[in-house]
Amino acid sequence: MVVVVRNTPRTDADVVDALGRLGVATVHEAQGRIGLLSARLRPIFRPARVAGTALTCEVAPGDNWSIHVAVEVARPGDVLVVTPTSACDDGYFGELLATSLVAHGVRGLVIDAGVRDVAELTAMGFPVWSKTISAQGTVKETPGNVQTPIVCAGAYIEPGDVIVADDDGVVVVRRLHARDVLAAALARVDNEEEKRERLATGELGLDMYAMREKLAQRGLHYEEYDPS
Amino acid sequence: MVVVVRNTPRTDADVVDALGRLGVATVHEAQGRIGLLSARLRPIFRPARVAGTALTCEVAPGDNWSIHVAVEVARPGDVLVVTPTSACDDGYFGELLATSLVAHGVRGLVIDAGVRDVAELTAMGFPVWSKTISAQGTVKETPGNVQTPIVCAGAYIEPGDVIVADDDGVVVVRRLHARDVLAAALARVDNEEEKRERLATGELGLDMYAMREKLAQRGLHYEEYDPS
Amino acid sequence: MVVVVRNTPRTDADVVDALGRLGVATVHEAQGRIGLLSARLRPIFRPARVAGTALTCEVAPGDNWSIHVAVEVARPGDVLVVTPTSACDDGYFGELLATSLVAHGVRGLVIDAGVRDVAELTAMGFPVWSKTISAQGTVKETPGNVQTPIVCAGAYIEPGDVIVADDDGVVVVRRLHARDVLAAALARVDNEEEKRERLATGELGLDMYAMREKLAQRGLHYEEYDPS
Amino acid sequence: MVVVVRNTPRTDADVVDALGRLGVATVHEAQGRIGLLSARLRPIFRPARVAGTALTCEVAPGDNWSIHVAVEVARPGDVLVVTPTSACDDGYFGELLATSLVAHGVRGLVIDAGVRDVAELTAMGFPVWSKTISAQGTVKETPGNVQTPIVCAGAYIEPGDVIVADDDGVVVVRRLHARDVLAAALARVDNEEEKRERLATGELGLDMYAMREKLAQRGLHYEEYDPS
Amino acid sequence: MVVVVRNTPRTDADVVDALGRLGVATVHEAQGRIGLLSARLRPIFRPARVAGTALTCEVAPGDNWSIHVAVEVARPGDVLVVTPTSACDDGYFGELLATSLVAHGVRGLVIDAGVRDVAELTAMGFPVWSKTISAQGTVKETPGNVQTPIVCAGAYIEPGDVIVADDDGVVVVRRLHARDVLAAALARVDNEEEKRERLATGELGLDMYAMREKLAQRGLHYEEYDPS
Amino acid sequence: MVVVVRNTPRTDADVVDALGRLGVATVHEAQGRIGLLSARLRPIFRPARVAGTALTCEVAPGDNWSIHVAVEVARPGDVLVVTPTSACDDGYFGELLATSLVAHGVRGLVIDAGVRDVAELTAMGFPVWSKTISAQGTVKETPGNVQTPIVCAGAYIEPGDVIVADDDGVVVVRRLHARDVLAAALARVDNEEEKRERLATGELGLDMYAMREKLAQRGLHYEEYDPS
Repeated sequence: MVVVVRNTPRTDADVVDALGRLGVATVHEAQGRIGLLSARLRPIFRPARVAGTALTCEVAPGDNWSIHVAVEVARPGDVLVVTPTSACDDGYFGELLATSLVAHGVRGLVIDAGVRDVAELTAMGFPVWSKTISAQGTVKETPGNVQTPIVCAGAYIEPGDVIVADDDGVVVVRRLHARDVLAAALARVDNEEEKRERLATGELGLDMYAMREKLAQRGLHYEEYDPS
Repeated sequence: MVVVVRNTPRTDADVVDALGRLGVATVHEAQGRIGLLSARLRPIFRPARVAGTALTCEVAPGDNWSIHVAVEVARPGDVLVVTPTSACDDGYFGELLATSLVAHGVRGLVIDAGVRDVAELTAMGFPVWSKTISAQGTVKETPGNVQTPIVCAGAYIEPGDVIVADDDGVVVVRRLHARDVLAAALARVDNEEEKRERLATGELGLDMYAMREKLAQRGLHYEEYDPS
Repeated sequence: MVVVVRNTPRTDADVVDALGRLGVATVHEAQGRIGLLSARLRPIFRPARVAGTALTCEVAPGDNWSIHVAVEVARPGDVLVVTPTSACDDGYFGELLATSLVAHGVRGLVIDAGVRDVAELTAMGFPVWSKTISAQGTVKETPGNVQTPIVCAGAYIEPGDVIVADDDGVVVVRRLHARDVLAAALARVDNEEEKRERLATGELGLDMYAMREKLAQRGLHYEEYDPS
Repeated sequence: MVVVVRNTPRTDADVVDALGRLGVATVHEAQGRIGLLSARLRPIFRPARVAGTALTCEVAPGDNWSIHVAVEVARPGDVLVVTPTSACDDGYFGELLATSLVAHGVRGLVIDAGVRDVAELTAMGFPVWSKTISAQGTVKETPGNVQTPIVCAGAYIEPGDVIVADDDGVVVVRRLHARDVLAAALARVDNEEEKRERLATGELGLDMYAMREKLAQRGLHYEEYDPS
Repeated sequence: MVVVVRNTPRTDADVVDALGRLGVATVHEAQGRIGLLSARLRPIFRPARVAGTALTCEVAPGDNWSIHVAVEVARPGDVLVVTPTSACDDGYFGELLATSLVAHGVRGLVIDAGVRDVAELTAMGFPVWSKTISAQGTVKETPGNVQTPIVCAGAYIEPGDVIVADDDGVVVVRRLHARDVLAAALARVDNEEEKRERLATGELGLDMYAMREKLAQRGLHYEEYDPS
Repeated sequence: MVVVVRNTPRTDADVVDALGRLGVATVHEAQGRIGLLSARLRPIFRPARVAGTALTCEVAPGDNWSIHVAVEVARPGDVLVVTPTSACDDGYFGELLATSLVAHGVRGLVIDAGVRDVAELTAMGFPVWSKTISAQGTVKETPGNVQTPIVCAGAYIEPGDVIVADDDGVVVVRRLHARDVLAAALARVDNEEEKRERLATGELGLDMYAMREKLAQRGLHYEEYDPS
């Protein structure tokens, strides 16, 4: 009943890397404000940024066995995405597993649970987004699915989807939408640069975005301070 | 029904800056252990310290429109204080809004919600105390009040009150009490320096504060360890 | 009804220091995955590492009086361990108390509550693991027990037990078991070094730990990706 | 530094009672969706409903002394509103205090902390909205202010304001606005009754509220299910 | 960009109703311990039990507009499943919407957010599983998708899937798997009845499930109590 | 390494039953406000009350195997107390295990984790205090210790200690102190009855407890309301 799916397709590397350069907030906006994982996932060191293709992995509570299974089907450019089958804060992952992943070209870890050896992971520069930091060890008794569609931290993720993660959090982009999202994100970035320059001179967003009329329609009005 | 109040009074800048030099814990103690915002507000980078006059702003859940409105009535030396009308962890604020605020002399942000672009905000050195870090974008459909009294993270704040924030958290000082609180805080600092020197020599707080008699009255007694 | 126990025994310093060099995750594993304090306790700065003998202290909610009492019975090499008698996030501890503890040779603080003056504590290099950072001040009205057995952050701790804390969290080792745990932990470290080297070459954990047969018995099977 | 304010004004009883009959959701809507206390406050039994004038009381963490002080200045028709000066879940209140309050005509309790004796309070029919149920006892060492403005569960409350509480939560209405809010709420109720009847027949909200055009403007469109 | 999908297929009514009679725990076990929604969803009254076909609906934070949209495409036997696009505890739903849903044959509501009018909903007997109870009102400015696949409370749900909810929580069964899951669940129930009878006589699970040998292999051993 | 301890001593039944009649708040006060388990443990139905001798049991996360082991060493009058070795909200316990426990004379369950089949447990009248209600099933791979000292929900508990639980929560009384605590609790009850009668007549706690002088010493003063 537990399955490892081999040879799942990955998003093209050029698209993945380009999305990674843009960052989470831009990619999230460009695809219509969807795909964000819960903000309870935080990087174990900052600054951190990574993009890669999702290598998905389910783990039982307090049991990290299937992470070992996942390493075998990893490919360079993957980001390991781990979700527990029920909520758990144990330390599923540490220096040894990171060493193994790095040897197989995996770029980072996203896990809706805990990790440990964070000083060592920081020294290695291996980026991790986790729910918790915990030294609590795990057993190896109950394997979970690898490379099947999962829900991780509230987001639906399929193997090979793009994972972009930075100091703001983690976002997933569907594999088949990735090139379109990239195009939209690049257009957005150009637009933002111009806005930034105008705002830096003191121009008001109220004017730049022509908000005043709509605000008045929504009932906004101005009063002078009355000290009485 | 939504209002922006213009020309609200601010606490005098010399008082604000002097309170800022003293820090949150000292100011909080000096005014009788009141005025602290909830410890759920944390700085996005450390160390960080700011003091300024409150520029207050209410936002609807998932809607950052009124932050744009607030920029227009900002004055140099303000700290923007944002509270959602119902609890929300979205990323209301990022690099563009920070650029706009800096152009108008605003010194920092206190927000009982989420922010994003934290790598960029850190690079800018723009200090933020927030409940969450989240890339989740917001809409612009429902404006909120600007420069009216608010409750932010459990504390009542009026426009022009003093906001002091550092690595320990955020405290508000009423505008009309600020000069008195400053005097009390300065006295406290002098007192602390002497205590620190005596404690550094190994003198016990029990003796320095003459606590032994009161402790005995409250039932404290001493026993030798009994290995049985 | 409130007691301070004097001259409680401490674990031998050589054992304490050796455990400290090994770190929390290794010690926790070596003693059979027990003794971990809740992951809600986090270091106020990173990296941080300490080992010492538990100087235990109970505090009433919002009342840090007994921390002053504890200083008198501290010995060099202790780590102060503070637990509130009911849950509280106030800032029980700051720079003055740290100065006093340092003068008595105390190496760090573990507290299931809040601390303040974290910028100053960081500058001093005084390591603290706490539940919260909060400037909220406390009173001195209700003393608590010092050097009695306590439960702190879910772990049972007796005076003189070994406390090891680092970026991964905090673990306690019973005084009478400490030498045995050290031996087990040292053996584990040797073993890990060899594993790390093999994993770094790309060897799979599946093979190194001979997991494949057991995984198959637990129902794991492999499928090729089916694009339909 | 701690004060009890005597003879604070109360909202008129007829207004209070009429608001109570309308319930929390209606009153909250009628005054523009403001004044709600945090949803963390829940009734200890259901159904429960009360309305009264706020008798405000601050308590130190783990210390219920000022509740005794508050009883003396209670008047028939009050609802006791208790807020801790820092977050605390202890059981501040039980059967004896409820007996005392009932003897003075107080109608219920709203507390951003814990209560105990809930079986007895339920048997008495004394309604309580609290953050927690906890048997944890409290001390009497540090009094707090009584009948001063407070922030309770995120809402600003002045003595004599109207407190309405039911199974949906707790709302405060400013004393000086209470009569206007009542008028608005009564109008709302009439309106709701007609809506309910139309919806019960199967009429769509889309039609009754004429939403279709605005929805289309906001980008809503319809598609047939495509099984491919 | 916002879509309502019409004429999505539903699971057959006989399967839905049979799953509903079995309850959440049995269905969850029968399909291999998957499909459970987060335990943060709780019924607003107990006992409560419902089964129906998922009518899915996304809502913006603090905005319940698309619930009105969903009513139009409801069919008798549906259960409305609502998920916010970012976390929100507002009261999205109350008596009027329930009246409208009942008129269209909808059997209940599952919502990863708040509801209000719970006394009225209880009186109506309309079952609701929600994250929060809150009177906080919402706006109608930003519609969300209706009848598209969603993630609700950590579970992936497609329109027409089976939703079973009772006092233990909420579980989803894929439409195409529903008949198989029903068969497995019915087999399980027969089995449980026999176990219950044997356990009621005092037979030990250790014997009934033949656990002793495997426990010994896992290191379990027995000791007599030693009072020393 | 995993142990079941047989024939641990129990507190005498007459003491257990007498403590049960007094309830949690009274027992907690009588033993000096100690021994309370975290308020996160709540009864699955109310009213509920039980007292018994602790039958302690550790469980691995997501694994309820050792509950089956515990049944064998249960004795009539026990209350099963279950603590996970790391935090877990899964549904460890349901109707079948309750049936088994009842057959062996066990009076109830206290568990710092989740339970399921709560409708059936309620119908059986089997009292349970748990952290969560969750249908999430568990495995049987990793046994835990039975009848050894544990920490459960923040309290240290030894086999045979007295567990008293009611609507206010759960308290533990050490076996060797139980008779003394009972005596203190009985005295307290007599005292409370007299207080209740006096308070019911309107006598103030301020007078009955002679608090006014001490309050004045602590700085309490009275002011008349000033409308300006």
